[in-house]
Amino acid sequence: MSVSNDLAAVGIDAISVYVPRLYVDLSAEWARVRAPEQGTDAATLTQKLTKGIGVRRMAIPDAHEDSATMAAMAAKRLIDGLALNLANIGYLVVGTETTVDQSKSIGAYVLGMLSRHYGMSLSHVGCPQIQFACIGTTYALEAAAALVRSGQLRGRSALVIATDIARYPKGDPGECTQGAGAVAMHISAAPRLLELDGLHWPSITVDERDFFRPNWSSEAVVDGQYSVDVYLDCLDRTLRASLEQHRPETAGRLLESQHFLFHTPFPRMAEHAAARLYRRLRALRGPHATLEPTASVREERTRDREVAKSDDFQAWFAKHCAPALRHISDVGNTYSGALYLSFASLVDGLGAAGRGGRVTFFSYGSGASAKLFTGSLASGGGDVLHVAEIAGVLADLDATGTVGRRRALSLAEYERLHDLHQQQSEARLEVAASVLPPRDEFALARFGTERSAQRVDVGYRYYDYVAAPRAVADVTPTARAEASLPEEAAWAQQ
Amino acid sequence: MSVSNDLAAVGIDAISVYVPRLYVDLSAEWARVRAPEQGTDAATLTQKLTKGIGVRRMAIPDAHEDSATMAAMAAKRLIDGLALNLANIGYLVVGTETTVDQSKSIGAYVLGMLSRHYGMSLSHVGCPQIQFACIGTTYALEAAAALVRSGQLRGRSALVIATDIARYPKGDPGECTQGAGAVAMHISAAPRLLELDGLHWPSITVDERDFFRPNWSSEAVVDGQYSVDVYLDCLDRTLRASLEQHRPETAGRLLESQHFLFHTPFPRMAEHAAARLYRRLRALRGPHATLEPTASVREERTRDREVAKSDDFQAWFAKHCAPALRHISDVGNTYSGALYLSFASLVDGLGAAGRGGRVTFFSYGSGASAKLFTGSLASGGGDVLHVAEIAGVLADLDATGTVGRRRALSLAEYERLHDLHQQQSEARLEVAASVLPPRDEFALARFGTERSAQRVDVGYRYYDYVAAPRAVADVTPTARAEASLPEEAAWAQQ
Repeated sequence: MSVSNDLAAVGIDAISVYVPRLYVDLSAEWARVRAPEQGTDAATLTQKLTKGIGVRRMAIPDAHEDSATMAAMAAKRLIDGLALNLANIGYLVVGTETTVDQSKSIGAYVLGMLSRHYGMSLSHVGCPQIQFACIGTTYALEAAAALVRSGQLRGRSALVIATDIARYPKGDPGECTQGAGAVAMHISAAPRLLELDGLHWPSITVDERDFFRPNWSSEAVVDGQYSVDVYLDCLDRTLRASLEQHRPETAGRLLESQHFLFHTPFPRMAEHAAARLYRRLRALRGPHATLEPTASVREERTRDREVAKSDDFQAWFAKHCAPALRHISDVGNTYSGALYLSFASLVDGLGAAGRGGRVTFFSYGSGASAKLFTGSLASGGGDVLHVAEIAGVLADLDATGTVGRRRALSLAEYERLHDLHQQQSEARLEVAASVLPPRDEFALARFGTERSAQRVDVGYRYYDYVAAPRAVADVTPTARAEASLPEEAAWAQQ
Repeated sequence: MSVSNDLAAVGIDAISVYVPRLYVDLSAEWARVRAPEQGTDAATLTQKLTKGIGVRRMAIPDAHEDSATMAAMAAKRLIDGLALNLANIGYLVVGTETTVDQSKSIGAYVLGMLSRHYGMSLSHVGCPQIQFACIGTTYALEAAAALVRSGQLRGRSALVIATDIARYPKGDPGECTQGAGAVAMHISAAPRLLELDGLHWPSITVDERDFFRPNWSSEAVVDGQYSVDVYLDCLDRTLRASLEQHRPETAGRLLESQHFLFHTPFPRMAEHAAARLYRRLRALRGPHATLEPTASVREERTRDREVAKSDDFQAWFAKHCAPALRHISDVGNTYSGALYLSFASLVDGLGAAGRGGRVTFFSYGSGASAKLFTGSLASGGGDVLHVAEIAGVLADLDATGTVGRRRALSLAEYERLHDLHQQQSEARLEVAASVLPPRDEFALARFGTERSAQRVDVGYRYYDYVAAPRAVADVTPTARAEASLPEEAAWAQQ
């Protein structure tokens, strides 16, 4: 069954993923130390994490990394890999719940990094930042798609970047669901990867307290089980709202989907969501072609669990959902990037030969908001697949330190990096020593410390591209400042 | 000269303003105390503020107010005044650089407040938050306009809300440019107030450090003079970029504008910007109909100042710019709301009889991004003017305390409210006593304090509508929690 689109064409032309080089191996030292703290042993804890929750490693940003550098790295891979002409980009929108500044947008920092790196002015680009927990990037995608469709971008395309760092307190039950990463997408009217179906897929919002982060805290407050309940309730609400909008088109597109992607803070969550959606789709396929009324939270979860155990569901899940989850367990939670990391995993796994068919996306952000939408995978389009490649991004460094890129942190290294985030203030404005010195990457070079007649910049983040390995101490603050401020330098020369 | 639009119609159907009831009178006690600290006397300081900077009063949120309550109040006025059917709203987007949470969007809190107040589900509304300093709301307007134009909202309209609190340290040179307020706008395909011109007006971005707010700070870091320079540079850049896009249409729309609105952190800034734009428009009107090359920052400012003194400019400014600035000096800086507070002032001042003609908006956000755009004032449309009315919003309470709504703070009251913002943490989660107890308004009712098996909500903001004056202590925490959580209560009853 194929349904024609009734809005102008737009979609995801290409996608790329960035993951920090450092990670915590949840089956090693971390588990040996945390297990007794939690009254268990390492083997049992590891089993619970890998089988129960589905996590194996969590990516941790180095001292010179933050949401802005990760976003710039994902964008750089996309730009280099596609040889994108940045003159044709009109909009760079960042979805995040890990901002680096409360006023300036991360996009503006990213634009500065890219502008200096590529040696070209990018002042023609609009750079807002969108926040709504883990659905922020979907709102960013929605805005970018609308700008392309409406003609407001005059034929230019857009970059949508998700960047987030999931942090919970050391020793907290949520600690094992940390993670970090960024995903960049090129959004255009002639997409080579996925064309969004031109229906109005409604966004739904309910005012909820399941997960939030007070302004004074660097760590989120999560009501774990409640958040799972709200997530599944929002899946039901958005499914009903979508069906109300355009039945039978919406039902048709969901039923004919070959691939189902879910917001995935941890892999087990995708299984819960898949069981719920499987039940609903089964009802839509049934003789009445309609959803049953929603029962109590408890009753719905009981039915989900029953279905989840069935052979039918497990075969369906393995075929239609699991391929997109391959890499989540090696990265951890990437918040607003998680759904799109799944999409990149799917695309990478299918390869050029396996592409085609319809994809259903379920986006969820605590607090809470959700959206279902679908799109068609372009067949062919192998020329953009190389930037979606993930195995190389996640490959461990080998013993020589020259092949691969990731390495495990000791518990002490991890805890030092974890503590860094709480320490910045006007009294402490130093970039701490990196575990792996920056190498061919954008890096936080220094914080501003001046409050004089000439310059006021206390706490400002200066970024730099570091082309080759070198000790941070080799670069004088002045040299770094100059290197990172060509716009301003040009200004001063006037 | 009239130019036809080539994008689908969309515009600002109506606008309303909310300003906190409390303010600091900058010519009274504040000036008497601060003047000697700054080595001057009160009369001289007041003269500098009123004549030099253009500020007279600054609005200060009460202890029960924050960006979310102000946004909800502005929205409520719009909804009540227009008898808006919320079932027809599909998108509620908030522009702010004063978020109340690092993950959840302010829009979701606002939606909850409105949903409970009007006793209806609003779960069909998408609620993202957009951040980029003072241009955030313009990006929100751009996204809302694109959603309406693209057809993605399926005929539904959008609410765009600006809400911000400008805070600087006590005794800081920027202290006198504080302020607070919210502006709500209804964006539709059949606007009764202003139709946006359907050209692509580009957003421009340069990576700048003129103003920012580190995550650890409740106050912005501003490089004052540098920020003025960047603002004017961005005005030039966006003007050139706009002319490059569509000449002669862009030039025509700017030249035929009767009203010019500028981002106005303080009224004098609008005069600087107006002088620059006046010079550029004069060149466009000249025999070469072109802009001269930009000179050095210093040289440009010198030419601006010369022009600013001229009778021609002053007459032009008084006629085409000043009417929109009438109320800014009584509110102070509203960051991302300032441009739209100017627009509301203009609309309110013109009345139904004086409406018509074209408006040029210049939006600027530090960090830095800018956008010029134009629109046509609908003639007539008097039926939406009552919600744009501002004099009543700003009227002082009379001696009986029953007529009017605003009152001046003593210095001690102001300083107590100022200090409150730094005090919240996991160890201090009380809503402090209000100066004026909430009355017919949305209010921050309490912070969550629980970390148990049943509920984890430490630091969560619970909001309530307070219909009549009452002591906050009269309401038990439990009663408040129930009153503010119908979604959750319904959930528990399942």
